[in-house]
Amino acid sequence: MQTTLVFSRDEFRSRLERLQAELAKQDLSGMLIHTPENIFYLTGYQSPGYYMYQCLVVPASGNPVLVLRRGELSNVETYSWLPSDQVRTYDDTNDPVALTADTVREVGIAASGLGLETGSWFLPVRHYKKLEVMLGDYRLTDAQGTVESLRVVKSAAEIGYIREACAVADKSMQAGLDAIRAGVNEDEAAAAMFSAMILAGGEYLGMEPFISSGYRSGNMHSAWGHKVIGEGETLLLEVAGSRNRYHGALMRAAYTGTPTDEIKRATEVCIASLNAALDAIKPGVTAGEVDEACRGTIERAGMYEQFRKRTGYSIGAAFAPDWGEGHIMSLQRDDERVLLPGMVFHIPPALRVPNRYGVGFSETILVTETGCEVLTTLPRELTIAKGVTA
Amino acid sequence: MQTTLVFSRDEFRSRLERLQAELAKQDLSGMLIHTPENIFYLTGYQSPGYYMYQCLVVPASGNPVLVLRRGELSNVETYSWLPSDQVRTYDDTNDPVALTADTVREVGIAASGLGLETGSWFLPVRHYKKLEVMLGDYRLTDAQGTVESLRVVKSAAEIGYIREACAVADKSMQAGLDAIRAGVNEDEAAAAMFSAMILAGGEYLGMEPFISSGYRSGNMHSAWGHKVIGEGETLLLEVAGSRNRYHGALMRAAYTGTPTDEIKRATEVCIASLNAALDAIKPGVTAGEVDEACRGTIERAGMYEQFRKRTGYSIGAAFAPDWGEGHIMSLQRDDERVLLPGMVFHIPPALRVPNRYGVGFSETILVTETGCEVLTTLPRELTIAKGVTA
Repeated sequence: MQTTLVFSRDEFRSRLERLQAELAKQDLSGMLIHTPENIFYLTGYQSPGYYMYQCLVVPASGNPVLVLRRGELSNVETYSWLPSDQVRTYDDTNDPVALTADTVREVGIAASGLGLETGSWFLPVRHYKKLEVMLGDYRLTDAQGTVESLRVVKSAAEIGYIREACAVADKSMQAGLDAIRAGVNEDEAAAAMFSAMILAGGEYLGMEPFISSGYRSGNMHSAWGHKVIGEGETLLLEVAGSRNRYHGALMRAAYTGTPTDEIKRATEVCIASLNAALDAIKPGVTAGEVDEACRGTIERAGMYEQFRKRTGYSIGAAFAPDWGEGHIMSLQRDDERVLLPGMVFHIPPALRVPNRYGVGFSETILVTETGCEVLTTLPRELTIAKGVTA
Repeated sequence: MQTTLVFSRDEFRSRLERLQAELAKQDLSGMLIHTPENIFYLTGYQSPGYYMYQCLVVPASGNPVLVLRRGELSNVETYSWLPSDQVRTYDDTNDPVALTADTVREVGIAASGLGLETGSWFLPVRHYKKLEVMLGDYRLTDAQGTVESLRVVKSAAEIGYIREACAVADKSMQAGLDAIRAGVNEDEAAAAMFSAMILAGGEYLGMEPFISSGYRSGNMHSAWGHKVIGEGETLLLEVAGSRNRYHGALMRAAYTGTPTDEIKRATEVCIASLNAALDAIKPGVTAGEVDEACRGTIERAGMYEQFRKRTGYSIGAAFAPDWGEGHIMSLQRDDERVLLPGMVFHIPPALRVPNRYGVGFSETILVTETGCEVLTTLPRELTIAKGVTA
């Protein structure tokens, strides 16, 4: 079997040891992990097939065991450090929750305390209730965020992959900016972005890119939509690159023609707010302070209603439907969490007027010992699209 | 506001009426809907932003109200029939679960019975528990599958979009098959597939395409992986097209060079199993009988261990991370659900030997009054890839 272990065995071992130390601290004898990013983080296993049930059963000491669909077994062999005796598979018509409960007992997790991820999308309520019944003698407890607390500060190897992902995002964005002009369909620019992304080494995404023109750019999360780009329109492009599940993201705006004063001013305010966030970032600052720097710039310009969202979010390992880690940490109002070296954020201030226009500019950044390093590299400016297609 | 209502108001009204009739039948005074496909089905609202909380509050009679992130409001105006007084938005640092509980009371849902989707990925356990507390006077009950039971048989308009999606999948697959040859990187074929998919009108996907060569094709769910395609290798390609959230999917295998007897036989068995499934499909047959026809063909050829999964799954409206509706209905062992005209399935038998090869062939099909109509149109054969690149 050709294997693709994207981190060293030492790094995986250290992650597991840190988790198990955390479980001991929380007085837990084990934990069930249903979040695909967390399973990947601890074992290396990855597959787009997580729409079928999967669960990593982690005892507070000893070896974790992965419960998953039988067809995915070869992906365990390819991507993870788990030996075959640490995997239990179910056939498509078997009950994976029952297999999970059996596995909890089999690995010897004591009934005194079993942590669960109560915020995970992939532990639905009915599975949770079934586990409550099947493990009726166990004290089930909320351990949501335990693995995420390890993930929020990135290792050198993780930062390396995020750098690669940012280079992919840069290339995809550049292809999009090169493709847009009045008379071209948004779809053509989207095709160029995907093509450049993949040819630059990009892998499957946590979320697909956004590209919208004119009135469509006034909507958040506007994917390509078969619209011909007009003269005198804003374009809003946002894309992630992905390498070994690690993402970096980038947003840029463009204009076909000579920008109006309104668009020029929105651009200036937006870029100023991004710069203010970047200037504010350093270890010891709170997430809320970074948000205050960005949002404050927009508020002072009288444009808060066009913004009205968080300033940014943690970014790293991701599976669809999100490329971000906002649930782990967001740069948002009054958030008192403190920035540490090795954290990575995507900061996408955008100003939108529904049905009229949208502009936005972002960077993916690394918190360093003294400030921040911007990992995405395109000029922080409104791109003026080339003329009408001949 | 330019709107894109992808179904008629009559069709949306009829869907809501059928749901409300079902709620009355279940003695429920209302239902909370957290599944993006179900919200889309009932309202037309769509956005890739469902990684943030959203919930449709449906009373057993009267108007439903959508709870969602403030930034998504313009997508409601663009895509749904909901008037503005049927939307409640939260800011990023507000509690959307509290807003949901408030909305339940506001719309006058009686405490006697409130249905919840306990199988939905997007109603995490901790939100459910919070609702239990905030709606402590309500009888919360499991209504999982209520909307899905309406979705399983498609309307003429839905089938129309699935036909379009299948045409997109066809074009994407053909581009992939045209691009592959020994010496070419899998990534180049993936870029060609995405590009053709988008230029054929394809929209953002529930799951991105799979393309793998040689030993990589022995793994399920193998996305493009930077590998150069070798001489004498199988290729396994699987792709969906998407139109207005409706998906159609297609799988094909190819070979670089002259197929070995082993590959020829695997191809024959795989296509025969697909044909057996298609021959078995007609109204009144059970899902298990279709599975038996497909799986039985493989078992009689002595190749069950290379297959060992369900035969197929319902397909229709989808948001990531899955393009299928297997949770609504699967063609699987002993499943006694009965096929009805208007159901649509993707049937992808594949035979894989980990670390060696994989072949697979599929069609997306519509159950008709008398049998089945195959909606995807490429030749059902092993493609022999062109020679080595000069």
